Amino acid sequence: MSLSMADEQKQLLQEIERLLESGDTSALRKLLSDQRSSDIAEIVELVDNDERRAIFDAMDKPMSAEVLEKVDEATRAELFELLKDEELISLVSELDPDDAADILSELSEEERAELLESISPTESAEIKELMSYSEDSAGGIMDPVLISVPEDATVAEAVSKIRAAEIDEDFYSVYVVNKTGRFLGDVRLRFLLTRPESAKIGNLIDPDTIYVNVNTDQEEVRNIFSKNDLIVVPVLDKNHKLVGRITADRVIEVAEEEAAEDLYTMAGTDPDELDNVSVFHAARVRMTWLLPCLIGTGVTALVLMFFHDRFHIDNLSLIYTVALAFVPMIAAISGNAGLQTSAIVVSGLATGHLVALKLSQVFTREVRIALLVALSCGLLGGIACAILLHTKGLEDGIKAMRLVFAFGTAMFSAIMVATTLGLFLPFLFRRVGIDPAISSGPLVTTANDSISVAIYMSLTLLLAT
Amino acid sequence: MSLSMADEQKQLLQEIERLLESGDTSALRKLLSDQRSSDIAEIVELVDNDERRAIFDAMDKPMSAEVLEKVDEATRAELFELLKDEELISLVSELDPDDAADILSELSEEERAELLESISPTESAEIKELMSYSEDSAGGIMDPVLISVPEDATVAEAVSKIRAAEIDEDFYSVYVVNKTGRFLGDVRLRFLLTRPESAKIGNLIDPDTIYVNVNTDQEEVRNIFSKNDLIVVPVLDKNHKLVGRITADRVIEVAEEEAAEDLYTMAGTDPDELDNVSVFHAARVRMTWLLPCLIGTGVTALVLMFFHDRFHIDNLSLIYTVALAFVPMIAAISGNAGLQTSAIVVSGLATGHLVALKLSQVFTREVRIALLVALSCGLLGGIACAILLHTKGLEDGIKAMRLVFAFGTAMFSAIMVATTLGLFLPFLFRRVGIDPAISSGPLVTTANDSISVAIYMSLTLLLAT
Repeated sequence: MSLSMADEQKQLLQEIERLLESGDTSALRKLLSDQRSSDIAEIVELVDNDERRAIFDAMDKPMSAEVLEKVDEATRAELFELLKDEELISLVSELDPDDAADILSELSEEERAELLESISPTESAEIKELMSYSEDSAGGIMDPVLISVPEDATVAEAVSKIRAAEIDEDFYSVYVVNKTGRFLGDVRLRFLLTRPESAKIGNLIDPDTIYVNVNTDQEEVRNIFSKNDLIVVPVLDKNHKLVGRITADRVIEVAEEEAAEDLYTMAGTDPDELDNVSVFHAARVRMTWLLPCLIGTGVTALVLMFFHDRFHIDNLSLIYTVALAFVPMIAAISGNAGLQTSAIVVSGLATGHLVALKLSQVFTREVRIALLVALSCGLLGGIACAILLHTKGLEDGIKAMRLVFAFGTAMFSAIMVATTLGLFLPFLFRRVGIDPAISSGPLVTTANDSISVAIYMSLTLLLAT
Repeated sequence: MSLSMADEQKQLLQEIERLLESGDTSALRKLLSDQRSSDIAEIVELVDNDERRAIFDAMDKPMSAEVLEKVDEATRAELFELLKDEELISLVSELDPDDAADILSELSEEERAELLESISPTESAEIKELMSYSEDSAGGIMDPVLISVPEDATVAEAVSKIRAAEIDEDFYSVYVVNKTGRFLGDVRLRFLLTRPESAKIGNLIDPDTIYVNVNTDQEEVRNIFSKNDLIVVPVLDKNHKLVGRITADRVIEVAEEEAAEDLYTMAGTDPDELDNVSVFHAARVRMTWLLPCLIGTGVTALVLMFFHDRFHIDNLSLIYTVALAFVPMIAAISGNAGLQTSAIVVSGLATGHLVALKLSQVFTREVRIALLVALSCGLLGGIACAILLHTKGLEDGIKAMRLVFAFGTAMFSAIMVATTLGLFLPFLFRRVGIDPAISSGPLVTTANDSISVAIYMSLTLLLAT
């Protein structure tokens, strides 16, 4: 099923590209208007800026706004550059306040202020209010659009309020408040259908009503949803007043975000790395995780050198001992670098984000990041090796330099091999029907270790003796 | 917020234990009837079997059934032993067919057949039907309870059908079918409230209706939900007939399951390990992941020994070289064993499952698993070391045995230290406000490496020379 979905997407992409090439705008307009905004968003993520411009020109405003909201952050950053200011303003004002607030939080402070000035004051006040909550809190993920009725209203009055609201959103409950605006509980929509029109709303309140506070962490919100099988939950401020509601679809996104975050953190990379298209940025994010690893394995090398002295083996070749002392560094750094790459690929495959579409893009990007990481680690590792040799007072300067060079080259090669495996194995595993996550497990990382140690020792032997 | 929730849980647990001790059954009955079934389920997971028995005696049947459905699989397995057969049958028949099917799939074939015979034939047919679908498919997670109306029905007729159904579940859409039972699309509940009573249902069908197939994988279902911001989706069989619906609350659970699975697989353990209370079972699951790691690092040791010969260092102490050759094994095995432990703890903390409740239980369990794993690895590592020494023809048998013993002991100690760190660091990090997931990242695993290598080399020096 997931493969056939990807196939459908591929067909749509080819069809769109064909129409773009032939310049048949009206056919393109027709094709796009028949699609779901989420499908177009995925296409927009894949095409280049010229094609994006043409696609946005061919969509009507509500569709363009939805697509802008649904693309990933990196693509949206590029769309901000691509779209004219007036265009962006008109798209943002098309969106619900919560979606608008999410998008505005990605703009620079200057652009944001400009945009907020250009839209209606009530709307801009609502957006500002939403932006004041932390992104990871209930306030940050809630939707302020809801229907509340006083406790002494009748079912008929509640229904006419829903009718009057005429909002293009779904409701699953109406919320009941007392005269001072304090929240009392919720009434399921189904009760409005099945109870007499004259019934008092106050009597239909669910005695088990669950609510969250505006400051509740989004991870906690997810746990409350899954523990209580919720579809929607009201959000209250500290005065027990209703400020919004969170629906389960948003919580599914939160669950995915939080899971990806844990996975990335354990693999030593950052979801942040995907929000930015720059390869340098991604390499920097990964290096901040590999640096402690370099230092740690440097300490291990020192530990091993310390024991070399304790074993009282005077006539042991220093080159050989130093080479061995750095084996853990080679194994750990190349293992982690490979793990970082496969974590990105595995979680991309799981969320369907990377499924079979323009793999070449992913490959080019990952290989360039790997090159930067391998170069940096090779350099830093070489320096660490040089320092260690210096403290041990290796007389033969040429020999020491050759060892350092061998070490840097070996580190570079080992990382390149490990990241290449981390990149291709998840896809390969998936193709033959094995869970891609296994390719990031101990099984593959250990195989990786043997390979990188073999490369390292061969290069040391070749270059340093 | 999450801490205060845990505090509430703790208070409830203390209150229940106090009432159990004093034998005040009516007060206990009153207290339990005021709680949410999800809260009681968490308490039931924590108390011993005698207390469980007393709690189930004090709850009414609907509440007992809900609690049985909400506890984790390991606890449920113990409840199956604890509850009398008639009791189990009456609780299962209290549940919705989808929940009943989930629970039945955990029973032995014999017990299942017995239970299915004891309930009403229609109910048992429905449950059997549900159990025929794969657990990870849309059919396996769907709820067969839904409301469908023919396309020529009016809004008033649809509403009276909902009223007549009188099901204790929430609906967000009604589904429209044609005369032959083929699915046509869905109508949101809100339209039934806001459109004239005489309007034809067929005209209110959402043109963008999304559905899934009964065989669609649950991961794909989750992706469809998050891509299209869904709350509920209908499930069709291969003849395009309605067979059920999946609601977002179930998908949130799926998202958590799938994320935990990826995390566990990457850390080299298995969500399966938590479904069974046996420590031996858990140790076996982890060993199946550590074994390839042992073999892989054994290959690395061979590689390093191979290079020892290539470097032509005849007078190098064989003890020292062999000791160094096993450094990657020590580092990798203890690192992975620590990672397995912390993956369990980190994901337990994230889902709120482990939050501050009876930590001593978790500790005792994890320490016992660690002991088993460390003993097995120590033994296997020692054997590998003995074989390698044998092939190298170390003349001094006593020396070789001492090295093997040193190696086994060192491996055991290093794993114990690593798992202890993997167990405590996530809690410690959480307490001081750092993301617990970081403690499973490269940062800590590398620190772990240095510590275990230092322990290993010290023991080798102490015992083998």
